[in-house]
Amino acid sequence: MSGNKTALVISAHAADFVWRAGGAIALHQGKGYEVTVACLSFGERGESAKLWKQGGMTLDRVKQARKEEAQNAAAALGVTDIRFLDLGDYPLRLDRGAQDQMVDIIREVQPNWMMSHSRWDPYNTDHMNTTQFALECRMIAQAWGHNPGQKVLGAPQLYLFEPHQTEQMGWKPNVFLDITPVWEKKRAAIECMQGQEHLWNFYTNVAENRGNHFRRNSGGMAGGRKAEYAEGFEMIFPQTVDELV
Amino acid sequence: MSGNKTALVISAHAADFVWRAGGAIALHQGKGYEVTVACLSFGERGESAKLWKQGGMTLDRVKQARKEEAQNAAAALGVTDIRFLDLGDYPLRLDRGAQDQMVDIIREVQPNWMMSHSRWDPYNTDHMNTTQFALECRMIAQAWGHNPGQKVLGAPQLYLFEPHQTEQMGWKPNVFLDITPVWEKKRAAIECMQGQEHLWNFYTNVAENRGNHFRRNSGGMAGGRKAEYAEGFEMIFPQTVDELV
Amino acid sequence: MSGNKTALVISAHAADFVWRAGGAIALHQGKGYEVTVACLSFGERGESAKLWKQGGMTLDRVKQARKEEAQNAAAALGVTDIRFLDLGDYPLRLDRGAQDQMVDIIREVQPNWMMSHSRWDPYNTDHMNTTQFALECRMIAQAWGHNPGQKVLGAPQLYLFEPHQTEQMGWKPNVFLDITPVWEKKRAAIECMQGQEHLWNFYTNVAENRGNHFRRNSGGMAGGRKAEYAEGFEMIFPQTVDELV
Amino acid sequence: MSGNKTALVISAHAADFVWRAGGAIALHQGKGYEVTVACLSFGERGESAKLWKQGGMTLDRVKQARKEEAQNAAAALGVTDIRFLDLGDYPLRLDRGAQDQMVDIIREVQPNWMMSHSRWDPYNTDHMNTTQFALECRMIAQAWGHNPGQKVLGAPQLYLFEPHQTEQMGWKPNVFLDITPVWEKKRAAIECMQGQEHLWNFYTNVAENRGNHFRRNSGGMAGGRKAEYAEGFEMIFPQTVDELV
Amino acid sequence: MSGNKTALVISAHAADFVWRAGGAIALHQGKGYEVTVACLSFGERGESAKLWKQGGMTLDRVKQARKEEAQNAAAALGVTDIRFLDLGDYPLRLDRGAQDQMVDIIREVQPNWMMSHSRWDPYNTDHMNTTQFALECRMIAQAWGHNPGQKVLGAPQLYLFEPHQTEQMGWKPNVFLDITPVWEKKRAAIECMQGQEHLWNFYTNVAENRGNHFRRNSGGMAGGRKAEYAEGFEMIFPQTVDELV
Amino acid sequence: MSGNKTALVISAHAADFVWRAGGAIALHQGKGYEVTVACLSFGERGESAKLWKQGGMTLDRVKQARKEEAQNAAAALGVTDIRFLDLGDYPLRLDRGAQDQMVDIIREVQPNWMMSHSRWDPYNTDHMNTTQFALECRMIAQAWGHNPGQKVLGAPQLYLFEPHQTEQMGWKPNVFLDITPVWEKKRAAIECMQGQEHLWNFYTNVAENRGNHFRRNSGGMAGGRKAEYAEGFEMIFPQTVDELV
Repeated sequence: MSGNKTALVISAHAADFVWRAGGAIALHQGKGYEVTVACLSFGERGESAKLWKQGGMTLDRVKQARKEEAQNAAAALGVTDIRFLDLGDYPLRLDRGAQDQMVDIIREVQPNWMMSHSRWDPYNTDHMNTTQFALECRMIAQAWGHNPGQKVLGAPQLYLFEPHQTEQMGWKPNVFLDITPVWEKKRAAIECMQGQEHLWNFYTNVAENRGNHFRRNSGGMAGGRKAEYAEGFEMIFPQTVDELV
Repeated sequence: MSGNKTALVISAHAADFVWRAGGAIALHQGKGYEVTVACLSFGERGESAKLWKQGGMTLDRVKQARKEEAQNAAAALGVTDIRFLDLGDYPLRLDRGAQDQMVDIIREVQPNWMMSHSRWDPYNTDHMNTTQFALECRMIAQAWGHNPGQKVLGAPQLYLFEPHQTEQMGWKPNVFLDITPVWEKKRAAIECMQGQEHLWNFYTNVAENRGNHFRRNSGGMAGGRKAEYAEGFEMIFPQTVDELV
Repeated sequence: MSGNKTALVISAHAADFVWRAGGAIALHQGKGYEVTVACLSFGERGESAKLWKQGGMTLDRVKQARKEEAQNAAAALGVTDIRFLDLGDYPLRLDRGAQDQMVDIIREVQPNWMMSHSRWDPYNTDHMNTTQFALECRMIAQAWGHNPGQKVLGAPQLYLFEPHQTEQMGWKPNVFLDITPVWEKKRAAIECMQGQEHLWNFYTNVAENRGNHFRRNSGGMAGGRKAEYAEGFEMIFPQTVDELV
Repeated sequence: MSGNKTALVISAHAADFVWRAGGAIALHQGKGYEVTVACLSFGERGESAKLWKQGGMTLDRVKQARKEEAQNAAAALGVTDIRFLDLGDYPLRLDRGAQDQMVDIIREVQPNWMMSHSRWDPYNTDHMNTTQFALECRMIAQAWGHNPGQKVLGAPQLYLFEPHQTEQMGWKPNVFLDITPVWEKKRAAIECMQGQEHLWNFYTNVAENRGNHFRRNSGGMAGGRKAEYAEGFEMIFPQTVDELV
Repeated sequence: MSGNKTALVISAHAADFVWRAGGAIALHQGKGYEVTVACLSFGERGESAKLWKQGGMTLDRVKQARKEEAQNAAAALGVTDIRFLDLGDYPLRLDRGAQDQMVDIIREVQPNWMMSHSRWDPYNTDHMNTTQFALECRMIAQAWGHNPGQKVLGAPQLYLFEPHQTEQMGWKPNVFLDITPVWEKKRAAIECMQGQEHLWNFYTNVAENRGNHFRRNSGGMAGGRKAEYAEGFEMIFPQTVDELV
Repeated sequence: MSGNKTALVISAHAADFVWRAGGAIALHQGKGYEVTVACLSFGERGESAKLWKQGGMTLDRVKQARKEEAQNAAAALGVTDIRFLDLGDYPLRLDRGAQDQMVDIIREVQPNWMMSHSRWDPYNTDHMNTTQFALECRMIAQAWGHNPGQKVLGAPQLYLFEPHQTEQMGWKPNVFLDITPVWEKKRAAIECMQGQEHLWNFYTNVAENRGNHFRRNSGGMAGGRKAEYAEGFEMIFPQTVDELV
């Protein structure tokens, strides 16, 4: 049990954290981490096609519906701290005010690790801009002269979670996490995403296939671990260790 | 104490393992690992300029001198298992016979991790050919149909140790190892390399500066670990973990 | 004849579309496409040296002169829909207002394919910023919640046309287009660029040499197509096909 | 119907063509292509663990068993021309003799397109060596002075099929092929691989998820094609076209 | 003696120019160049931890202290023209006004070469944003229509100086400069950085090891130049020469 | 006048040195360098289609014809030392014997700089294998224990000359050489290549366009050098200098 550890997941749109990091979130929450999920937007304009196809929809109604889905998904993952920055989407408004807001969250949470999107995404510039934003805010949170007196940030890893169409994004996972123990929670969270049912099976397939990668990289035919479901992540920063494994 | 763990370091020339991985070797030997060092050549033709500048030198005398240096260095690091494949250098002769020899070693050692050179080295093609050779032999050692009945290899990580002029080699460390506890041993091993005194200070500088990188990545101004000396490595394969750190 | 197909070329400065995509434009216009050219600026500050070297020049006069050249070139290529967003150049002002303007154009045109600059250009940041802008606007145009009720965009390919000094830009063409049937039109359009006569021969050479590449890649010495002039493009997104060719 | 077209798939081990290109093979065979499959080895040493775990196995028995599986799979895909070069595996013996053999096949087949593995594969050097071998043989087959009098090769595309763990291989698909019409055939071929049942579900997941990528890239929420299953490929060479799509 | 040559170093924070380019600055100043150093910020928030840990610190006092250090360091290097743009740090405010200010400086200085940071820095986005800013301003300074009548800029090289943790930044030096003649000046400048004493030894090690690289690349064991200290730089633009060396 | 300087150009096939480096060769020969051209093969099988299309051709006759062309071209460039290693082509036979032969040449010539092909060429593996071979031989030539007593090689730059279809080869020129003074010689050498007349205009276009790049990078509209013809090269190794330019 790792008691008072914390983590921070920065999600461009309300649903991103579910598909891409739901397993990691539930797993660490279960290990005693307090995982904070920060949704920069609700994905209200760009990732709510199903709602907009209904009659009489308004931006506020879409935002409310997406918020509820995200809250339900977070609850399914055991998360109690989900925050909505309401920065608009397609495109996100990532200005100085948004930075200050995010730096405050980072310093409050003091995460052991952070998580965000891939570095490149030609399909969805909100995603790559969020990663850039996360790096920028991490840097500010480390500055002793930013709001002097606050506790400054250390040097948490930034994990990049799995984008859609990984190969187009130049995303290369260098760590696989066994999420078998929490798979049911992740699947339950996925099913909270009523507007994107076409992705349920997709991300179940991803989890199964990443499980294969976990087994293969932990020993393969000659003794790999029996992980059934896994998630992949790319670490931006080098690790510091006392033993090679 | 990790008792019966093992590791295998594949060194193109007799001295490579000292400069680049001496700390990792001594550290793990001290943790109870049995570390095997396999020197593919003595560096007798290409890395023994000082000896060749002396009068009346022969290939055998150079090989002998380099072998003794390497043995002394290995001893200084606490290594009891160093092997010389005598494959010639500049260039290495990495044929089918050499493969079989190396696969036998890999299967005998059953390493928890392996270590070798960088993927690219335009200054020294022996280095990059060794890495390719290590990957090839790792694959063969995993084949159930190669010498059936022998214990096949699992899926050990291949760490790439630090090349000279890292940036020219496209080498990017993604893990730093704290070697402070064994620095004196690494320095002693370095000083066994009588023919390459011009590199003693160079690799001491490297160790100090990698120590700075270790501190910076483990927390920086806000709580980094007090490592004084470190080594960097690039992992080729993704890791498999149960918790993100 | 492909009747009601459309295409959209986004040109940072008024002349860019001529040198880099004039053949593609004329060819598709001839195939029945309606090709829209959107010039973000006139290149009035940064690409009009010859005019500025004349006495008594003003920004408005330069813009007018460059506009006329671009209109003449467009006419030579058979284009009837050229638009000038007048966003300023060196640097372009690519703010939220510019985005909305461009998204409106994209949705109005509903292009079968889009075209823009390379991803990287250290000589001319307007170029690479335009590509980023094109990706951002393409994403917004796909959002069902952006101006709900408008027809949303599908998933048109974004072709990157040939930059000056291709190798410095990391631009790699993955498709060559035979522009032999419209070469005279492209040359006529090129000659409309009175201020940049030093580039006429340059881009004629490019077209000839890309013709060689076309021949080589369509069969070479053993049956390549007899294209005399070609243009190269880099596709950002993967293609979707029913047969491999 | 494209009558007398041909294609050539070069597979390092006997099963590779099934998982990675079974859909493309069956689809083109159905379009009237004559698809030749060349298996460089049976995967007898390195990809037959299940057989080797049985008692009393010999290399010949493994080869025979693997050959039958591959023949059955080929038949399921509608292939009538499958060839076994028996070059050994783990590692492949890709010497001058093997080159001559493969060049003869290429010239005999005169393929409209060729297909092989990814450029990089640290897990399986046989795969990347095969791609290098395919490029080398393609070059020789184009040489007018190699066996003068034979019909020389034109410039067929070399498609790289999907490796296991795509992101580790630096493989980036730039074309998706709809294999929905032949999915049942591919699944039947997959089920011929009795020794690798753990991969059946894996590659079914892959096909489903590539189907999602196909839909997304052919129009997404605003009109994508209803492909249910797809395969991805990376083209090495640029295309030559008369129209952009 | 090269009399009236000039150079311009663009430093994100007040101390960057010292660690990374102090040798190049002192050396060229000694050759008769007039080197201008432009500090975009004082590093007052993000690179002054030691000061902020003292009681009763204010932003103005930190800026003043950092300014004095930078001025002292510049003096130690022989620089008489150091400018502080005071654009704030963590993050830098690189808006249109800042651009105009920098373009004025560039045009005033008319540098033979410019110098700035690396293209990528996930630890410190100020650094990579500065490089982007330098490229953008270089482009504007070349525009004949920007402040017509001013002397426009030619095409000076942009050198990227050495970042901290080079391998993480994708920085690859393609030129080494012998700074042995001015090493004492660089060391003196380094010692002006009272707040960052932990870096003094680090950058001395760097200079020594780059000296080794200089020797190795100028001839190695068979006649390399006896440089004791060097600095490495990455050129963004190709060189134009009359002889290969 | 640089008197006794030397250079070594390693050409996979007999004609490569003409198209790609003819200007550099003639220019340096004119400056007093002794330039040695080593042709590994005559390109007799793969680059002599025109000859093979004639009746009654034999390998010896093709080799003789290609040799004469290469000798004529060399003479046109002022070269007096051209050597033919006759290693066969498509593919080249780059074995240990070939290495020894090339190392002898390198040591005999003691080149100030070396020149060869690009690192990657999927169209022509002979080209990239030659570059690898050049690096390997350069390394051996530096080994004090290879033929002790011979003068060992220093650390000459390896320039990579321009491949056909530069962007497909990942080749990026970082130096442009003004070849205007010797253009007539290069054109004369080009015209010696009777079998490849289709490339005469191609490489004239290349030279003109590289001239444009030279002008642009030496100052552009604000003072570029008036080079009419140029060649581009990629340096593999970093430079060592005493002044930045």
